[in-house]
Amino acid sequence: MKVCASLPKMKLPGQEEFEVSSACENVPTGELDSGPGSGPSPDGLSDTDRGELGVPKDPLLFIQLNELLGWPQALEWRETGRWVLFEEKLEVGAGRWSVPHVPTLALPSLQKLRSLLAEGLVLLDCPAQSFLELVEQVTRVESLSPELRGQLQALLLQRPQHLIQPTGTRPCQGSAQPREASHSEEAPLKEQRQNPLRRKLPPGAEAGIVLAGELGFLAQPLGAFVRLRDPVVLGPLTEVPLPSRFFCLLLGPSTLGNGYHEMGRAVAILLSDPQFQWSVRRASNLQDLLAALDAFLEEVTVLPPGRWDPTARIAPPKCLPSQHKRLLSQRREVQGSSAPHGALAEDRYGHWPQAPSPELQRTGRLFGGLVQDVRRKASWYPSDFLDALHPQCFSAVLYIYLATVTNAITFGGLLGEATNGAQGVLESFLGTAVAGAAFCLMAGQPLTILSSTGPVLVFERLLFSFSRDYSLDYLPFRLWVGIWVATFCLALVATEASVLVRYFTRFTEEGFCALISLIFIYDAVGKMLSLTSAYPIQSPGYPAYGCFCQYPDLGGNKSQWTKTEPKDRDDISSMVRKVLGDFSSVLAMLLGCGLDSFLGLATPKLTVPSEFKPTLPGRGWLVSPFGANAWWLSVAAALPALLLSILIFMDQQITAVILNRAEYKLRKGAGFHLDLFCVAMLMLLTSVLGLPWYVSATVISLAHMDSLRRESRACALGEPRSFLGIREQRLTGLVVFILTGTSIFLAPVLKFIPMPVLYGIFLYMGVAAISSIQFTKRVQLLLMPAKHQPDLLLLRHVPLSRVHLFTAIQLACLGLLWIIKSTPAAIIFPLMLLGLVGVRKALERVFSPQELLWLDELMPEKERSIPEKGLEPEYSLSGDSEDSELMYQPRAPEINISVN
Amino acid sequence: MKVCASLPKMKLPGQEEFEVSSACENVPTGELDSGPGSGPSPDGLSDTDRGELGVPKDPLLFIQLNELLGWPQALEWRETGRWVLFEEKLEVGAGRWSVPHVPTLALPSLQKLRSLLAEGLVLLDCPAQSFLELVEQVTRVESLSPELRGQLQALLLQRPQHLIQPTGTRPCQGSAQPREASHSEEAPLKEQRQNPLRRKLPPGAEAGIVLAGELGFLAQPLGAFVRLRDPVVLGPLTEVPLPSRFFCLLLGPSTLGNGYHEMGRAVAILLSDPQFQWSVRRASNLQDLLAALDAFLEEVTVLPPGRWDPTARIAPPKCLPSQHKRLLSQRREVQGSSAPHGALAEDRYGHWPQAPSPELQRTGRLFGGLVQDVRRKASWYPSDFLDALHPQCFSAVLYIYLATVTNAITFGGLLGEATNGAQGVLESFLGTAVAGAAFCLMAGQPLTILSSTGPVLVFERLLFSFSRDYSLDYLPFRLWVGIWVATFCLALVATEASVLVRYFTRFTEEGFCALISLIFIYDAVGKMLSLTSAYPIQSPGYPAYGCFCQYPDLGGNKSQWTKTEPKDRDDISSMVRKVLGDFSSVLAMLLGCGLDSFLGLATPKLTVPSEFKPTLPGRGWLVSPFGANAWWLSVAAALPALLLSILIFMDQQITAVILNRAEYKLRKGAGFHLDLFCVAMLMLLTSVLGLPWYVSATVISLAHMDSLRRESRACALGEPRSFLGIREQRLTGLVVFILTGTSIFLAPVLKFIPMPVLYGIFLYMGVAAISSIQFTKRVQLLLMPAKHQPDLLLLRHVPLSRVHLFTAIQLACLGLLWIIKSTPAAIIFPLMLLGLVGVRKALERVFSPQELLWLDELMPEKERSIPEKGLEPEYSLSGDSEDSELMYQPRAPEINISVN
Repeated sequence: MKVCASLPKMKLPGQEEFEVSSACENVPTGELDSGPGSGPSPDGLSDTDRGELGVPKDPLLFIQLNELLGWPQALEWRETGRWVLFEEKLEVGAGRWSVPHVPTLALPSLQKLRSLLAEGLVLLDCPAQSFLELVEQVTRVESLSPELRGQLQALLLQRPQHLIQPTGTRPCQGSAQPREASHSEEAPLKEQRQNPLRRKLPPGAEAGIVLAGELGFLAQPLGAFVRLRDPVVLGPLTEVPLPSRFFCLLLGPSTLGNGYHEMGRAVAILLSDPQFQWSVRRASNLQDLLAALDAFLEEVTVLPPGRWDPTARIAPPKCLPSQHKRLLSQRREVQGSSAPHGALAEDRYGHWPQAPSPELQRTGRLFGGLVQDVRRKASWYPSDFLDALHPQCFSAVLYIYLATVTNAITFGGLLGEATNGAQGVLESFLGTAVAGAAFCLMAGQPLTILSSTGPVLVFERLLFSFSRDYSLDYLPFRLWVGIWVATFCLALVATEASVLVRYFTRFTEEGFCALISLIFIYDAVGKMLSLTSAYPIQSPGYPAYGCFCQYPDLGGNKSQWTKTEPKDRDDISSMVRKVLGDFSSVLAMLLGCGLDSFLGLATPKLTVPSEFKPTLPGRGWLVSPFGANAWWLSVAAALPALLLSILIFMDQQITAVILNRAEYKLRKGAGFHLDLFCVAMLMLLTSVLGLPWYVSATVISLAHMDSLRRESRACALGEPRSFLGIREQRLTGLVVFILTGTSIFLAPVLKFIPMPVLYGIFLYMGVAAISSIQFTKRVQLLLMPAKHQPDLLLLRHVPLSRVHLFTAIQLACLGLLWIIKSTPAAIIFPLMLLGLVGVRKALERVFSPQELLWLDELMPEKERSIPEKGLEPEYSLSGDSEDSELMYQPRAPEINISVN
Repeated sequence: MKVCASLPKMKLPGQEEFEVSSACENVPTGELDSGPGSGPSPDGLSDTDRGELGVPKDPLLFIQLNELLGWPQALEWRETGRWVLFEEKLEVGAGRWSVPHVPTLALPSLQKLRSLLAEGLVLLDCPAQSFLELVEQVTRVESLSPELRGQLQALLLQRPQHLIQPTGTRPCQGSAQPREASHSEEAPLKEQRQNPLRRKLPPGAEAGIVLAGELGFLAQPLGAFVRLRDPVVLGPLTEVPLPSRFFCLLLGPSTLGNGYHEMGRAVAILLSDPQFQWSVRRASNLQDLLAALDAFLEEVTVLPPGRWDPTARIAPPKCLPSQHKRLLSQRREVQGSSAPHGALAEDRYGHWPQAPSPELQRTGRLFGGLVQDVRRKASWYPSDFLDALHPQCFSAVLYIYLATVTNAITFGGLLGEATNGAQGVLESFLGTAVAGAAFCLMAGQPLTILSSTGPVLVFERLLFSFSRDYSLDYLPFRLWVGIWVATFCLALVATEASVLVRYFTRFTEEGFCALISLIFIYDAVGKMLSLTSAYPIQSPGYPAYGCFCQYPDLGGNKSQWTKTEPKDRDDISSMVRKVLGDFSSVLAMLLGCGLDSFLGLATPKLTVPSEFKPTLPGRGWLVSPFGANAWWLSVAAALPALLLSILIFMDQQITAVILNRAEYKLRKGAGFHLDLFCVAMLMLLTSVLGLPWYVSATVISLAHMDSLRRESRACALGEPRSFLGIREQRLTGLVVFILTGTSIFLAPVLKFIPMPVLYGIFLYMGVAAISSIQFTKRVQLLLMPAKHQPDLLLLRHVPLSRVHLFTAIQLACLGLLWIIKSTPAAIIFPLMLLGLVGVRKALERVFSPQELLWLDELMPEKERSIPEKGLEPEYSLSGDSEDSELMYQPRAPEINISVN
C-alpha cells in the first residue's frame, strides 16, 4: 500500500461558509449556471473557485466506467456505464444508453471494493501530466513482473469503444475505430468533440474514469485509486474531452467472476455521491478515503432481498432529497468541531411554513406600507426594463398574449351576456389592455397579469340583476360602486390591512375557490340546458326549426384531457407538443368554432360591435355620474361597494401571497400595499369608462412567472435542472397588454365564436379549479373505504375521523354559502366568505395545532407559539422524524382561485 | 454469550426435496390454502408438516414489534410495527396502520444488531412454556443485579397496547386497558380473538415478537434472541392470539438513541425474510444465526444516499421476484453439497417460452389427436359436473350470462343489418344457446364461450355482398359453404393440423387482430356518418325533418373510461364498484337507450320479430339445400368455404392456445382437436338452421376463466394472493347458454335499442382490441423521440432501428391487407392472413433469433435450436443477466383477438 500526498495538507474552509451554504441546498454539485471564468484551478479549492454565493464549490464530476471485455480471445475496452448523479447503462443489445435511473448496488461489491482499495495502490494528488505517465505510475506495483507490466501497460493504452448517441431519435454505434491507436496525441478526437453530451456538461466539469475487468494473466487482483493533482485530458479514454480528476483501476483474475463489473459500478456510484466526492477531494491519505467509504455505507438505504426486484430501474425523483443535513453533519465531523446551535435550529425550522415576508410587517404609520413598497420598487425600476433583454421573454410574451386574449374573449363574452350588453367583448379588450398595461407599469409585483376574474364576474352579475330588479340605471350605479370600492381599498392601503392576509389560510382559500368553481359549473350547465329551449333538440313529434348539438361540452373536456399530459414531455425536438399542450384551450375554441361552421349550426354567437364604440347603444366612453338614478343611490352604492371591496381584497391578496411565495426566489421583493393601491385606482378608472373590473389572476400570472424561469443549464444523466429564479421585469406584461389592445381589430373575426364554446371553456375552468384543491381530495376520502385510500401524508398524521370532521365542517360552510347565494341576499356572499376566517378561528377550539398544521396551516399567533411546543408527534417513535424531508419540500401552488 | 441448543441437531431434508420445491416458487411461506390439519408440530419440521406437493414447509410467520416508549416518566409498551413479508407501521398521530410497504433499513442498524446479538443471549429451542418462564430465562444475565432483574421482569410483563383496526372505514384506538394487568392467564383476550387480522392469517401461523426500546436504568445494552422449542401463546403480548416461535429483546441505555427502534425493525425485517427464516429455524448455534444474518446482508440491495428519499414508501410489487434461485443456492450451501447440474439447468431454462403442450404433439395417426383428446377428457367427465358445486360458480354464471347476452344482441343486431335480415337477433340468441350449450357438453376445453366473433362477422358480410352481387339465394349458398367448411375442418382434425398452431406467433396474431379491429372501427365510424344522410344534422338553411345527436359515441367512450379503473379496487365493502366496472358495456347500452327514449330521438332501432320465427320472412327453420340456386353452386361454395376454413381454423386455434396457456394451471388438459371437431359439427348445424356461425371467443372465455379462479385466502400485510388454478367444469357454461336460450323472450324489450348504441359498442370493441397489442405500442415508438420512450424491456435489447424496421414491415403487411380488403377480392383476405405466417418465416432471414425473441416469439424449429446457442446477449456484461427475473415472469394474455 502506497500513499503519496504530494501537496501540503489542504486548508479546510471556515465555519461560516457552511452556514452560508445552507442557502443552496438541492444543488449538490454547485451552481451549474456559473460563468466560464470559474474553471478548474490548480488545487481545486482556490478562492477564485467560488459560486455566486461565495460558497466554495467543487466542479461537477462526470464518471465513466470502461470495462475490459472478451477475455481471453478478443480483449477490448468498452464504456458500459456513466454517471453524474444518476446512472446510465449501456444496453449492449439495443446499442443505446438506458434511461437515467437511481443506481442500486449489491452490498458485497462495496465490501469487496473496500478491501481491494485497502490493499491496493492509492495515489492522492498524483502529478501525472498525461495518460502515459499515469499508466506508468499505477502499474509500478511489486507483484507485477516487468513482462506483465509491459503487457498491462499496452492493454491500458488501447483505445476504448464509446457509444456516442446523437440527440436525434436514431442512435448509432459510434467509433468502430482501429483499436490499437496510440495515445500519443492528447488532443481530443473528433467524435469526442462532437459528442452532444459535452454540451450538457457545464464548463469546468471534470471526469472520473473507472477501468474494470477480468484479466486472466494477473495472479492477484490489482486495485488502484488515483486523484490527479491537476486534472488531465486522458486522450480518448473518456467519451467527452473533459480533464480527468479521478482514475480507478480494478483488474484481476477470473476468480471474482462478475465482481469487477460490480466493483467498477461501486466506485462510480461512490464518486457520483456529492458527499463522498467532497470527502475524497479533500482526503489526504488512505484512511480518509476508507473513512469516506464507511461514511457512505452508514447512509445507504437497504432493501431486503426478495421483496424488491433488483433489476427494476427507479426513475430519478422529481425533487432530490435535501443534501443539506448530510453535508452539514458530515463536514462538521471532518472539522472536528460542533456546529453552533443556531445553525441547526435554522435547519430544523428554517423551512417551516413560511414566516410572513418582511413586506407584510406592519409599520404602524398611515400609508407606511405603501411608502415602503414604493421606495423598495423604485430602486429596481430601471432594472425592470433592462432585465427583459433576454430571448426567453419573446416566447413568454407570445404565450401570455394568447392566454390573455382567450381570457378577454371568454370573460368579455360572458360579461356581455350577464350584463345584457352593459359590458362586452370590446370593453373587455380595451379594459384588459388599459388596466393591464397600467398595472405592469406601476404595480409592486409587475409579473402579475390582471384579469376580470371569476369572483368579480359573479359579483357583477349579481349587481346587475339587483339593479335590474330595482330598475336602476346600471352603469351610473356601477360607477358609484366603483368610486366607493376605490375609497375603501385606499382605506385598506392606508391602514396596512394587507398584513391581515396571513389569516387567510387554506381553509378560507378552499372555501373561496370551491364556491366560485361551483357557481361556474352550475352556470355553464344551466346555460347549456337553457339553450335546449331556445334551440331545442329535435324529437320526432316536434317539427320545430333548429337543432343544437352539445359538442362544446366535448371541447371543454378535450382541453382537459390534453392538459393532463405530463408537462415534462417538452424538449427542443418536440416544440410542437408543448405548444399544443399550452394552447389547448385556444385549440378547443378553434375546434369548436370550426365544427360549428363546418356543420353550419344555428348556435347563438358572440355579440361583437361592428365599430369602435361601447357595446351598449347610446352611451359614450364616459359614464355619466347619475344618469336616471336618484342622487341618494350614489351614497347607497357604498353598501354593495363594501361587499365588493371585501371580495377584491380577498381575491387580490390571496393571489399576491401565492405569487410572492419564497420558493419563487424573487429578488426584487413584493409590494402588497402598492398592488392593492393600483387595483383601487384602476377600479376607479374602469368604473368611469364602464369597463370590466380587474384584479390579479392567479393562474395566468403563475404561467407568466413559469415562462420566465431562470434555470441551470440542462444537466446530463437525469439530474433535474435547478431553479435559479424568475426574470423579474415589467416589459413582458406591458407588451402583452399593448398587443391585447391592438387585438381590438380582431373584433370582426370574433363574431364567429358560438357562445356554447365559451360555456364549455367556462365549465372546464370550474372543473379544473375545483379538482385542484385538497378539499376535493378529502371529500373523496369521505366516500372511500380505508383500504383504498391513497398514502397521503395527511392521513399518516391525523386520525381519519378528524379528517372527516374537518371536511364535513368545510362542506357545511360551503352548503351554507350556496344557500345564501341562491336567496335574494346573494349579493352579501363576500361577507360570508370573510366569515370563513371566523369559522377557521373557531376551529382552533376543536382541532389541535398539530392537526391544523396538517389539515390547513397555522394562523399567525399559533404559528409563533408552536416552535416552543416543539410541534413533534406525541411520541418521537422514529426520532429522525420520518417525514421531515417531505415537510421541508417547497409547497407547490395548489390553489387556482381566480378560475382562469 | 450463551447458547442453549436443547434438542439434538436437526435432521436436514434431503436433496430431492429441494428439486421438488422448485415447483412452488413465489409462495415463499408455503401454500397458504392448506387445511387446518397442518398445525405446528413439536420440532417444526416433522414429516406430517408437509404441504400438498410433499414439500416440507414452514408455518407462516407474523412478526410484531412492541416498543417501550415514554422513558423515563410513563413507560409503556406499544405495538408500532408488524410484518409478514411487507411492513405496516403504526401512524401514531393518525391512529391507523400504514399501507403495507416494502421495508427499508439503514445499514448501520443491521450492523449494530449483529454486534448486539453476537454479545447477547441466544437461546435456540428454549423449552419455556409460558411468557413468565420465558421472561425468567431471558433476564438470567450476569450483568443484571437481582433488583434490576426484578424491575425488568415486571416491566416486560406489562400489557402492551395494540391498535386493533376494524375492517370498516373507521379505525379506532383499541385497548385502553389497565396496563398493569398480570400475565397469569394465558387465554387470549377478547380483543385479540376479535382482531380481524386473525382471519387473514392461515391456520398454523406462528408469531415472532420483538421487544425494543430505551431503558435508562440498564448500564449496558441487553440483547436476547430466543427460538422457542414449542411455540407458545404469550398472553396479550401479540395482537393476534398466535403461538410465538421467536422472541427478541433489545433494550438498553439511551446512548444508542433511536437505535433500538431501528434495531427492532431490523430483527423484524430479518425474520420476515423467507430465507433468513428458513435458516434460523434450523440454526443450531449462534454462528448459524450470524451466518444467516450475513447471508441476508450479501443479498440486500443498496440505494446510495441522497438520490432516493428514504422516507418514500414503496408499494408491494404485484408479482414478487422469484425466491427460487435464492433458496436453492443458499440451502445448498447449508448442506455443503453442490446441486446436480440438471436442477440448475431447469432453473435456467424451465420458464423459457413455453414448450408446446403435450396435446399439440403429433401422433401420426388419422384422427389420432382427436382420439387422444376424447380419451383424456372422458376420464374427467364426471368431475366436470362435481367440480361446479361451489358458490363461486353462481357469480360466474351471472357475470358471463350478461356478457353473453350483450354479445348476442350486438352481433345479432349487426349481423341482421349486414345480411339484410338473413340473420337477426332471434337467430343470434337461438344459435348462441344451441351452439354454446352443445360445445360446453362436448368440447375439449369446456370453459370456452362460443360467440359469433369479429372475423366471422366480417366474412359473413363479404359473403352476403358477394351473393347479392351475383343474385344468389343467400341461405342455401351459405348452407353449402357451411357443409364444405365442416368437411375441411374435419380434414384438418384428421390430419392433426392443430399442431401447426405453433407457427402462429405474435406477428400473425397481431396482424389478425389489427386488421379486424380496423375493420370494426372503420365500419362503426362509417355507419355513424352514413346515418347523417338518413337522419341529417339540422343546419339553418336546411329545414328537413329529423336530427341525430352522436351520444352513442359518448357511450362507447364512457365504457372505455370506466374500464381503465384499476381492477384491484374490489373488496367486499365495494362490491358495487366491481359490478359497475364489470358491466360497463351493459350500463353504457342502458344509458344510451335511456337517453334515446328520454329525448325521444328518431333513431333507427334494432329490428326484432314479434313472434318466434326466423327473421327473414317466408323461410322455415330448416334451410332448403338448393333454393333458387343452380346445382353447381353447391360445388363452387367449396372455394369461399376454403377461405372461411382458414379463418375459422386461425381464430379458433389461436384462442384455444391462449386459453390453455401453462400459467392458468389447468389440470384437465386441453383438447385442440376435439374443440375444432366440435366447431366443425356446429358449423354444419348452424348452416342447416340458418343461424350465425360460431367459434371460440378469446376475451369472454378469459373472463369466464377469471371468474373461476381458485386463490389462496387473502393474506395479511400486502402479500399478493397466490393463484392455485381454475375451477374447470362444464356446468357454468351450460347454465349460461340455457339462460341465454330462455332470454329469447326478452325480444319485445330489445326493440328499444337504437342501432347507434350498438355501433358505439362496436367502435369501443375495435379501439379496445387495437389498444391491447404490442404492435400499437411499437407504432407509437415510431413517432416518439428516443428521450421520451418508455423503458420497455424490448428497447433494452433490440436496437431502435431494428424495432422500427419490424414495425414498418408489420405496417406494410397491414396496409396490403387493407388494400386487398377494399378491392372486389376482399373475400380472399383469410388467405392473406395466412400469408402473414410466410412473411414471419421470411423475417428469420432479416432478424437474428435474439431480436425475434424480444420482438415476437420463436417458431418451433428455431426454438429448439436456441438452448444450444445459449441465447445470451453478445457480451455477458452483467453476468447475472439483469432481466432474467423479468423474462421468467408469466406472460399475461395480451391479445384480444376475437374482439368481443
